[in-house]
Amino acid sequence: MDLLSTNQATITERVGAPIEIAHVLVRDPNKVRSRAAEGLRITTDAESVFRDPDLDVVVEVMGGEEPARSYIERALSQGLAVVSANKYVIAQHGAALLEKAQSGRVDLAFEASVGGGIPIIRTLREALTGDQVLSLHGILNGTSNYILTKMKQEGLSFATALKQAQDLGYAEADPTLDIEGHDAAQKLIVAATLAFGSRLTPDQISVEGITALDAVDFSAAERFGYAIKHLAIGRDLGDAISLRAHPTFVPKSSVVATIDGVLNCVFIQGKALGPCLLVGRGAGDLPTAVSVVADLVDVSRSRREGARGLSTRAIVARPRKLLPLAETVTRYYLRFDVDDTPGVLGTIATALGRHGISIAEMFQEDTSDSQPVSVLMITHETREGDLVSALEEVRSAPFLKSCRFIRIEDL
Amino acid sequence: MDLLSTNQATITERVGAPIEIAHVLVRDPNKVRSRAAEGLRITTDAESVFRDPDLDVVVEVMGGEEPARSYIERALSQGLAVVSANKYVIAQHGAALLEKAQSGRVDLAFEASVGGGIPIIRTLREALTGDQVLSLHGILNGTSNYILTKMKQEGLSFATALKQAQDLGYAEADPTLDIEGHDAAQKLIVAATLAFGSRLTPDQISVEGITALDAVDFSAAERFGYAIKHLAIGRDLGDAISLRAHPTFVPKSSVVATIDGVLNCVFIQGKALGPCLLVGRGAGDLPTAVSVVADLVDVSRSRREGARGLSTRAIVARPRKLLPLAETVTRYYLRFDVDDTPGVLGTIATALGRHGISIAEMFQEDTSDSQPVSVLMITHETREGDLVSALEEVRSAPFLKSCRFIRIEDL
Repeated sequence: MDLLSTNQATITERVGAPIEIAHVLVRDPNKVRSRAAEGLRITTDAESVFRDPDLDVVVEVMGGEEPARSYIERALSQGLAVVSANKYVIAQHGAALLEKAQSGRVDLAFEASVGGGIPIIRTLREALTGDQVLSLHGILNGTSNYILTKMKQEGLSFATALKQAQDLGYAEADPTLDIEGHDAAQKLIVAATLAFGSRLTPDQISVEGITALDAVDFSAAERFGYAIKHLAIGRDLGDAISLRAHPTFVPKSSVVATIDGVLNCVFIQGKALGPCLLVGRGAGDLPTAVSVVADLVDVSRSRREGARGLSTRAIVARPRKLLPLAETVTRYYLRFDVDDTPGVLGTIATALGRHGISIAEMFQEDTSDSQPVSVLMITHETREGDLVSALEEVRSAPFLKSCRFIRIEDL
Repeated sequence: MDLLSTNQATITERVGAPIEIAHVLVRDPNKVRSRAAEGLRITTDAESVFRDPDLDVVVEVMGGEEPARSYIERALSQGLAVVSANKYVIAQHGAALLEKAQSGRVDLAFEASVGGGIPIIRTLREALTGDQVLSLHGILNGTSNYILTKMKQEGLSFATALKQAQDLGYAEADPTLDIEGHDAAQKLIVAATLAFGSRLTPDQISVEGITALDAVDFSAAERFGYAIKHLAIGRDLGDAISLRAHPTFVPKSSVVATIDGVLNCVFIQGKALGPCLLVGRGAGDLPTAVSVVADLVDVSRSRREGARGLSTRAIVARPRKLLPLAETVTRYYLRFDVDDTPGVLGTIATALGRHGISIAEMFQEDTSDSQPVSVLMITHETREGDLVSALEEVRSAPFLKSCRFIRIEDL
């Protein structure tokens, strides 16, 4: 609302008419609002709002699943355009809502749901309309990226970095959605709707957070020439797509590895376009407002011309098969925490070899004083199902304390 | 045309109707065309094309000033939408053409004129519609960026790096437009039309190329902590805008410093948005085609709905005063090539001091065997007019062989 009033003159010129805020529907009428809300009709009565015959566009920035989803559905049913910043609702119910919007020829715009002010949705929907997206790699959660940056740069533990992020307001009191990867997964689902035409929900894809990472992983990444980033990854493999969100080793030399702090980014490989990177602030009131206003101006301008649903028309659904995680083929970082007894490496290497997994690089920590020690490896390309079977076998060895892997993406 | 046929099904769905190529107007009908041109009506007769009553959109990818400009003007006059990849025509005649398009309520789209496949125009026009662009820094010429990258990474001379670029097809036989900065300046003018609402032409702004740079500058940049990039710079100073294209010292730690080779980028600072970076291939048939097709789909879709000129409506002109170069205030890298006689530094420092210019860092090459030697400095913030006067004064000193400066941008 601040942006709308600050830039009212140019916005009016761009739309061809002023944008007037008719109602502000809120949960709690007593909450303190920004000064821009002064003089506006603030109400808790959804019925009365939806009965106003003069509405054109509903802007939904309330967040959460309900009543947001019902309001969006109702608005679309009434032929109103909708601008939403709600990643959860779009990720979870986007397929049904888009279908409703398309059949009713109304706009459902949701730039602000992914990457704050970065024009990710607009780029996928409009700029790449004549191309095919081969892959998409996003740093889509600023909280996780901030924590990983602090762990790398200052050697902080996960807990300390999280505490700092909370003190600075970069992480919520309950940070689960961010640090467990769910926020990034929701945004990936929304982006994939446009990039690949898929109609999936977050619970269908593989999601891992950053909570298990520690100093051993960061020093190993450094030694092997990688940075650790939490990436949301989408890849078109032709007959299937691969969608996953997890901590990832990316080459230190790639630009994505340099996107630090609370910044977000999305790296797109288009078949004709080639590589394209978008970077910016992925969260915050003002960047998000920029995207909301951009959508609002866009749908208002076309609506005024009687052209309804143009933005939604650009989104084409295609039935896409999801690649099972076991079929993923990539390189892996492996970490085995073991009691330092003779024969350890032989046992591990034999098990890996039995499953056809070949080791590109290996490093074992200096064993002088610490028990257990970490054996760290980088594999050649491996089918994930084979790796899981091999690790299952290694797990039965008496020397093994724990083992795990992190996927590598060669950006 | 290749892209149109490859992705015909999705494009048709997005537009709501197939896009049919009615005519292909060419200069030389005997030139070998891509296979996608087979079966198309190729002609050199513009009259007959423009007399076809069934046209909707004219796509202009012929380049050069005439007859491209006349064709665009004629198309707009006839109420046809135009998609152009012509940076020269848009930079030189954009104001008049946009006015014609806006008064006739037709679309004039030109994403492909700046930054190849990177959605720079779309981002400025649509995504930032509710925000104010404070500044814009672009690496907009891939040839220059390739040459500078080679000079930095491999210590090549300008001439050798240029030759390599030509051998690889990254530079034309006559590379003047690229290496003298004119190509970047044209793109800056086009971007500024959207970012700042300005209606200027390339000859009104300050343009410098990269031909004068040598190894001394690169080692000095490295020592002072900078990379050298050819940047197109636009800055909104409130009462005026600053537009210029020149070699620039940018901090090595900035992301822009890492955009190497033929890649292009644009770094935007929005008042509400904050920093936003777009990176990709700035040239090449395929990336350019992606932008042309995106514009074509966009204007065709709205046109089919009877909504004409939507994209052009989003562009708001504002009379903007151009900041004279002498009024520019920034930090500078200074280079004095001198005979190594006593008192040199004193004379230079005195002259600078007399004009209120303060030196932040200084470095003098080892003088053991080379004559002349280079005295290299980084200044604090300085008004360019004062710097020019001071250098004028230094130039009269008998020890001075040559002196020059490079502007610093703190990205």
